[in-house]
Amino acid sequence: MFNEPLELDMDEPQNIAILGLGLMGASLSLGLKRRGYAGRIYGYARREETRTAALEGGIADQVFSDPSEAVREADIIVICVPIWTIATLAEQIVPALKPGAIVTDVGSTKSELLKTMEPLFENSDAHFVGSHPIAGSEKTGIEAGDPDLYQGRLTVVCPSDGAPMISSLWKSVGSEVVEMSPEQHDAMLASTSHLPHMVAAALVRSVADGDPAKKADFCGTGFKDTTRVASGSADMWVDIIDTNRAALEAELDRFHEELQGLIQILREGNGNDIRNWLEAAATDRNQVLKLNQFLKK
Amino acid sequence: MFNEPLELDMDEPQNIAILGLGLMGASLSLGLKRRGYAGRIYGYARREETRTAALEGGIADQVFSDPSEAVREADIIVICVPIWTIATLAEQIVPALKPGAIVTDVGSTKSELLKTMEPLFENSDAHFVGSHPIAGSEKTGIEAGDPDLYQGRLTVVCPSDGAPMISSLWKSVGSEVVEMSPEQHDAMLASTSHLPHMVAAALVRSVADGDPAKKADFCGTGFKDTTRVASGSADMWVDIIDTNRAALEAELDRFHEELQGLIQILREGNGNDIRNWLEAAATDRNQVLKLNQFLKK
Repeated sequence: MFNEPLELDMDEPQNIAILGLGLMGASLSLGLKRRGYAGRIYGYARREETRTAALEGGIADQVFSDPSEAVREADIIVICVPIWTIATLAEQIVPALKPGAIVTDVGSTKSELLKTMEPLFENSDAHFVGSHPIAGSEKTGIEAGDPDLYQGRLTVVCPSDGAPMISSLWKSVGSEVVEMSPEQHDAMLASTSHLPHMVAAALVRSVADGDPAKKADFCGTGFKDTTRVASGSADMWVDIIDTNRAALEAELDRFHEELQGLIQILREGNGNDIRNWLEAAATDRNQVLKLNQFLKK
Repeated sequence: MFNEPLELDMDEPQNIAILGLGLMGASLSLGLKRRGYAGRIYGYARREETRTAALEGGIADQVFSDPSEAVREADIIVICVPIWTIATLAEQIVPALKPGAIVTDVGSTKSELLKTMEPLFENSDAHFVGSHPIAGSEKTGIEAGDPDLYQGRLTVVCPSDGAPMISSLWKSVGSEVVEMSPEQHDAMLASTSHLPHMVAAALVRSVADGDPAKKADFCGTGFKDTTRVASGSADMWVDIIDTNRAALEAELDRFHEELQGLIQILREGNGNDIRNWLEAAATDRNQVLKLNQFLKK
């Protein structure tokens, strides 16, 4: 795996700046380095202890407290922070970018972000390419960095100038890449990722009911797994939900129909109705997992 | 762990019949044997291949295709089948029970079952004690049997004649025991276990939307974990839902309030409202897991 040829330029390797050294950023750097990437990796982190940890952990060759300093020598810039902070950082770095530099991100929604980016990059010689690696963990922070986080996973890249280079970047850490418009992406992920997150959080709120001690001992592995993602980074998820509201409301409506169907069965249905309802779910889940090419690892 | 004293009688060990040799039944037998239990274990299974596997895997010392034959020499009988089948089996075995025999079960709801059991045991010298070990897996069948399934988990035992012996049985396979009325149990588990199951199934149905191929590749680990329990045994879950309808409808209503609160925020709230909503969920989940004494293993 580590010997597979990188598709980035090996003779004259690009220098990469990673802005934000949490789970996603640290994992990207570790993934590149573990696979022998020879370009320099510049890191930006807001907190000094993160910058120190990045140097000590070999996650960045050089660290900066100023994002525009971090990008000055970089050919590729990957912004790994919550969505609205991507916009803030982009505004700061655009004037410092090398001509031809390509900026990308790892945000879980794309439409609103790309709308925000357009005017910023319009009069610049640099390009912005939206990407979203569908990989993650409820763990956060630089210490959660995992060189194989992207291995075997799917990354969505939005078509635009510079997209082939960014596709090549994600492939070099083991990801497969699909091109998709921002709108298509956001509608798809609203269902497959954002809805499960909201449902998990609503489930915790409902079970805990303002007093988590009351029922804690009776929560089993079912509760634990069903709600795992609800412990994920609020910083990241606030912006995801904030920038995908219409699609999320549509998904919540669709989900509510399913619950209403079940309530109807509880009121008037028999055992067979319950069985059919449950079996369709089990069959569909098994099909999803069987057909999914990126959850095998 | 395996050297801890069994609390069942070791000098004149009771003989135990386990009716139903799926995940729960096989795990109970394996747990007893792994911990040195010296009594005989009789097994009943409907299917011949399960009976053969039970003998070959050392899960039962003797197997029977007739439940009333299996219980004839048993002091303790544990019925490990879906809830309505518990009632059917109990009806068959009551005439064959030894005087003083104690029958228990592993069903996830207790009120309706105990109402059904009362007339069956009323004129018998045997006792029925409701139990529910809060342990499980989405895996099913005898091959999923795990000697440590009950280790460190909580088992609810409903107060009645024979309850101390049944408590001792569960303790002997590593479980802790709490006594609880059937009604209290069913209301509690409706929230902590049955609601997560229904929500997970509804989530699969909503995301798959009748065509699991459409979005499969975009389902990540979040979807996978949030819906894990939806692949669980439909046979078991049909009866759970069927016998806890009123409590489940109340829980679904409560859950729906949480979703409505979120929809309200999506329509009118700002980033801070989203953050507060998410952070309450994360905090409550972390509290539940911290306070829970039985999810540590």
